[in-house]
Amino acid sequence: MKTESRLVQWICWLIVITSFFLTGFIIGWFARPTSTDTSHDAGSRRHLREFLDEMRPENIRDHLRKFTRLPHLAGTEQNLQLAEQIKAEWLAYGLDSVEMVPYDVLLSYPNISQPNYISIVDQLGNEMFNTSLSEPVPEGYENVSDIVPPYSAFSAQGQPVGDLVYVNYGRTEDFFQLEREMGINVTGKIVIVRYGNIFRGNKVKNAMLHGASGIIMFSDPADYCAPGVQPYPDGWNLPGGGAQRGNVLNLNGAGDPLTPGYPAKEYTYRYNLEEGVGLPKIPVHPIGYHDAIQLLKNMGGDIPPNNWKGELNVSYRIGPGFTDGFSTQKVRMNIHTNNQVTRIYNVIGRLRGAVEPDRYVILGGHRDAWVFGGIDPVTGAAVVHESVRSAGKLLRKGWRPRRSIVFASWDAEEFGLLGSTEWAEENAKVLQERAVAYINADSAIEGMYTLRIDCTPSLHTLVYDVTKQVSSPEEGEEGLSLYESWHKRDNWTDDRDAPRISKLGSGSDFEAYFIRLGIAAGRARYTKNRKTERYSSYPVYHSVYETFELVERFYDPSFRRLRAVAQVRGGLIFLLADSQLLPLDASQYAGSLTKYAHTIAQLGQKHPDALVKYGVSFDSLFSAVENFTVAARDFHERLNTLDRTDPIQVRMVNDQLMYLERSFVDPLGLPGRPFYRHVIFAPSSHNKYAGESFPGIYDALFDIERTANPKQAWDEVRRQISIAAFTVQAAAMTLTPPA
Amino acid sequence: MKTESRLVQWICWLIVITSFFLTGFIIGWFARPTSTDTSHDAGSRRHLREFLDEMRPENIRDHLRKFTRLPHLAGTEQNLQLAEQIKAEWLAYGLDSVEMVPYDVLLSYPNISQPNYISIVDQLGNEMFNTSLSEPVPEGYENVSDIVPPYSAFSAQGQPVGDLVYVNYGRTEDFFQLEREMGINVTGKIVIVRYGNIFRGNKVKNAMLHGASGIIMFSDPADYCAPGVQPYPDGWNLPGGGAQRGNVLNLNGAGDPLTPGYPAKEYTYRYNLEEGVGLPKIPVHPIGYHDAIQLLKNMGGDIPPNNWKGELNVSYRIGPGFTDGFSTQKVRMNIHTNNQVTRIYNVIGRLRGAVEPDRYVILGGHRDAWVFGGIDPVTGAAVVHESVRSAGKLLRKGWRPRRSIVFASWDAEEFGLLGSTEWAEENAKVLQERAVAYINADSAIEGMYTLRIDCTPSLHTLVYDVTKQVSSPEEGEEGLSLYESWHKRDNWTDDRDAPRISKLGSGSDFEAYFIRLGIAAGRARYTKNRKTERYSSYPVYHSVYETFELVERFYDPSFRRLRAVAQVRGGLIFLLADSQLLPLDASQYAGSLTKYAHTIAQLGQKHPDALVKYGVSFDSLFSAVENFTVAARDFHERLNTLDRTDPIQVRMVNDQLMYLERSFVDPLGLPGRPFYRHVIFAPSSHNKYAGESFPGIYDALFDIERTANPKQAWDEVRRQISIAAFTVQAAAMTLTPPA
Repeated sequence: MKTESRLVQWICWLIVITSFFLTGFIIGWFARPTSTDTSHDAGSRRHLREFLDEMRPENIRDHLRKFTRLPHLAGTEQNLQLAEQIKAEWLAYGLDSVEMVPYDVLLSYPNISQPNYISIVDQLGNEMFNTSLSEPVPEGYENVSDIVPPYSAFSAQGQPVGDLVYVNYGRTEDFFQLEREMGINVTGKIVIVRYGNIFRGNKVKNAMLHGASGIIMFSDPADYCAPGVQPYPDGWNLPGGGAQRGNVLNLNGAGDPLTPGYPAKEYTYRYNLEEGVGLPKIPVHPIGYHDAIQLLKNMGGDIPPNNWKGELNVSYRIGPGFTDGFSTQKVRMNIHTNNQVTRIYNVIGRLRGAVEPDRYVILGGHRDAWVFGGIDPVTGAAVVHESVRSAGKLLRKGWRPRRSIVFASWDAEEFGLLGSTEWAEENAKVLQERAVAYINADSAIEGMYTLRIDCTPSLHTLVYDVTKQVSSPEEGEEGLSLYESWHKRDNWTDDRDAPRISKLGSGSDFEAYFIRLGIAAGRARYTKNRKTERYSSYPVYHSVYETFELVERFYDPSFRRLRAVAQVRGGLIFLLADSQLLPLDASQYAGSLTKYAHTIAQLGQKHPDALVKYGVSFDSLFSAVENFTVAARDFHERLNTLDRTDPIQVRMVNDQLMYLERSFVDPLGLPGRPFYRHVIFAPSSHNKYAGESFPGIYDALFDIERTANPKQAWDEVRRQISIAAFTVQAAAMTLTPPA
Repeated sequence: MKTESRLVQWICWLIVITSFFLTGFIIGWFARPTSTDTSHDAGSRRHLREFLDEMRPENIRDHLRKFTRLPHLAGTEQNLQLAEQIKAEWLAYGLDSVEMVPYDVLLSYPNISQPNYISIVDQLGNEMFNTSLSEPVPEGYENVSDIVPPYSAFSAQGQPVGDLVYVNYGRTEDFFQLEREMGINVTGKIVIVRYGNIFRGNKVKNAMLHGASGIIMFSDPADYCAPGVQPYPDGWNLPGGGAQRGNVLNLNGAGDPLTPGYPAKEYTYRYNLEEGVGLPKIPVHPIGYHDAIQLLKNMGGDIPPNNWKGELNVSYRIGPGFTDGFSTQKVRMNIHTNNQVTRIYNVIGRLRGAVEPDRYVILGGHRDAWVFGGIDPVTGAAVVHESVRSAGKLLRKGWRPRRSIVFASWDAEEFGLLGSTEWAEENAKVLQERAVAYINADSAIEGMYTLRIDCTPSLHTLVYDVTKQVSSPEEGEEGLSLYESWHKRDNWTDDRDAPRISKLGSGSDFEAYFIRLGIAAGRARYTKNRKTERYSSYPVYHSVYETFELVERFYDPSFRRLRAVAQVRGGLIFLLADSQLLPLDASQYAGSLTKYAHTIAQLGQKHPDALVKYGVSFDSLFSAVENFTVAARDFHERLNTLDRTDPIQVRMVNDQLMYLERSFVDPLGLPGRPFYRHVIFAPSSHNKYAGESFPGIYDALFDIERTANPKQAWDEVRRQISIAAFTVQAAAMTLTPPA
């Protein structure tokens, strides 16, 4: 009996022990997380808060102060030293690695011994008047050497002499009006146009196309002075002696003109200057409005229509040439600017992702400036610097984002987006396979009113999310979020009740990433009131008056606007890098495509007879957009039931989201523009700054009224509609379940 | 005391229980596999054995018999019916989905009411001799209708009359020799060339370039008869009445000539015929050697060098025109072939992957045939069919591969790889992002000697692995593996002790996948002894004599050779789809690149003075190849320490392997050939069939001795070296650790 009960007791114990073991085993089995942490996103949000709060106005002020003491023209010693300083500080902040990446690209500088200027000459060639050789230097910078005078980078050399013709903004439509309506041919003439409205390179291209022997661009107060504002230093308007520097290339995304498509490394084949991409063949020069008055005041010819008139005290006569009494005088341009292959340096900092190091979120902006870069680019560079500092702080506390973050300080943006494009070319394969998004960080402020966002539609939702995490920087808006302030100031009234977001154009370093490689991209800055403030850009743009003081005195004395921009840019990269599911929204893309399809179809429907005659229909495009809309909706519905604990499932949908933007790239490029490959967004051929939707169709329609061969022109419209429809359809396919 | 000891006892029990619980917990924790099954590969090997063993010679025989009873010309009702039959059978075998995918492409057919032929005409235009209108039909097929007569698809229409000029194979160098050394200009003449050596479309292009008004291609016994073999049906040689059909396009990978770059869907914009890609502008016609004798026998002019002579009983005089006594006679071509947009159908079958459904392994081959397709393509299609059947069998047993498998039956391959290229165009985005490899399944046999493999270097290791799993099909080699048999018969003696593997050229459906999209690709077939059998292709290629009986009587009576090919093709897709780590070998690629760099540099070094004079150096290429070699070695070393239980780690390295081939694609394409984008492998511009390594450099060097502008020509060599160096360098970057 005793041994028996002992046995029973032992069995009981065995059972108890076994069941405890089993319970433990089962709990252990199920307690173990399978790689992916579903509670990750909550933690990520806490870190986001820390990341944003760590950014300080006073730090941004200090970075701006430090980086704007000297000129940092691309290709100069000062800009290399700044690169080294940034590298050292990023390493000190705690990035995993920082490297300098050099390229040898074509830059363009004035000839120091033969300055550029424009003269009025008499019959004997005597100079009656010369434009100024430089801008009056602002107070406090009198002893700074190496201030490059205003010039048009990549201008051809030459000393053309001729009659002036005034062509308003130098747009395609201005030249058309001049030739067809006013009957004036500019062949052999020197064209004078006002800055603004379109990219200056397009003005130069138009002048060349129409046979001009040279082109002068001036800043008119109508376009570069805000009413009631004093010229710098008493206000933020452009003084009469100031002028706008800038490159006058027509690169269409090629990067270095001598190495299109390939990085400008030592071993790279370089075309001759004559074969280089986008180099103007005529002299080009920029002047301020004091000089412009002298050239314009005695012009003859007809009085132009009112919309050709600026705000100078002249009659804006068209020419050609000067009026009676001055008619023997001509204008001579004296341009000696040199092109030269020069070494430039990008600074690339990396922060390795903890889970998916092979996924990259990029925050990039340029470092090179025409002079001090008070706004352009250093307000942007200061913001990137503060983002790196804040990220480094979190890193030290043990945080590491899910994906890798790449910080870039680009060189030679002012010379045609060269640093960013060469790096994109060198890393094209890796970026195409692994880049999640590119956030641009050029000038962070161009006005004092509210936020301005240009981005791809898939980022809209994230932008709204991030701006709700940021406070309004405006006085008297304590307690309001940036989103609320922005919403109040710039509502998207025609479409819906939300703050306005615009399309990306070009003119900054996101170009190669977005338009060539198809990486989701966006930019954020503080801007003016677009309804009431009509001047181009900001008045002192690309002049010597872009100083630290300009920002400190006028644009952002508290540096809270810049902080807000830093938090938006930083918040975007943070959530793109750290969210388990990529915060990209295919349905927003669908909505935008629908809108764009209607817009472009309306443009076509201005020619109802031609549509019938040439068999042009937008049906295939609408049908593709509809398919895309359904695919996007279904995709996001499936996300709701996604098993977030399965890392491969998560990676698969993230890959679909990442590659969505890529699917809009046509490897054949837009007509005649092999490096503009995004079928949904690209600048118009007529203005690099303006982002057009369905740019292929837009360009085909642009000249439809002016063409000599309507059959051919409408065939091209049909071809472009077909390409757009195909591309949208192909994008829809990438969103369907993968097998 | 008692309560105390009770307490101690309870504590002891608690400790025991807790420790059992903890032990259980810990064991449970660690016992749980984290998603990825490391023992998967062993199971996969067992399934591979089953998959291979399931393929049976008698089934392949039955498929071949069934699919070759009727002609299956692309665009015909019979070929649509065959597509539907294949679809139904693939579904019955158990694929997850099978769809018919139509395109509307430009095809070309003879005019039924106006047959094509060539005449010898007298001064009055009377026909003294006409070539035959069709081939004598083989026994057993007398009642088959719809046998298309021999013709050159896409020939221009026309009836040019002129003197004949014989230009050997019609190669670039033949025309050069004719014009420069023999002093004969073919402008306005009708050129007659023998088939073989290069792709027929290149012959036509050369004739056009040199101004010929028409071109006749004939099959010479020197190139289309094996010594000691009887003509079909008594042997497998080409009878004198047989002729080789074939398209004469110069598409360079464009697919449908009217929709280059985009799928030929209903909504797609189509170019006019005059703008179509690669369409010849002159009449073209193929003839057999019985007819050729009649055209050649009275030709005048000089006797050519010996390497221009074939094996006909004529003297192969060059012309122009006929000899004394016949010199008033001319040759007239009568060509009425029509181009027409026609609907074609691909059949696409899918087998969804269990773990990574968004990774695709493709087995594709064409279905359309010029007539019965006894060898081309049905030996290939039968093999695919048997692979599908075998995969279906495994599926029923519960097996499912890790990745998805796509089976494709392409249409209109014979008309310029149209079905496969249009599908690649329609699915380009998805394929670029997700395709692991493409295995081609055209003709599975062209000789009776041993295996022939053409593939990308990264597949070499896998090919050797798979062929070791397959038995030799040869009589008397029982117990030998296919690898051993192949090794014995075709050793890679110049390089190393392993069976020879060749480069991919073009001329079959892998082209768009490999050369345009950069998807790792390979093909396998049974072939002749390349050392002793010198005839082109197999003798009855593209004639009516390609029948089931040809294979059953001569090429593979036991159908074991075809089974072996099926097992190789099937084994490749199986292991690509089912291995946890992709069986792609970057180090093999490095080895091949090293070899190719030396080969191309040697070609350049034939001109040592020019290299110095024009500053041409291959150093950058060698340096890039060295960097690639190091990156590949390090990559594979890191694989040894990879945590295979971490699904994201595994996916990351697999992505690197998958995208390796993609990294050799240059989106700008090769010069003048926008759809040939693979910088390492593409056909030479002078022969579509020949795969050249570094084709850009090769083409630039090809004409270096014949150029009128050596500076420009050597600049192009330098440019191509720079592009190659950059591309290899970029590929190396994709293999480095991702952050």
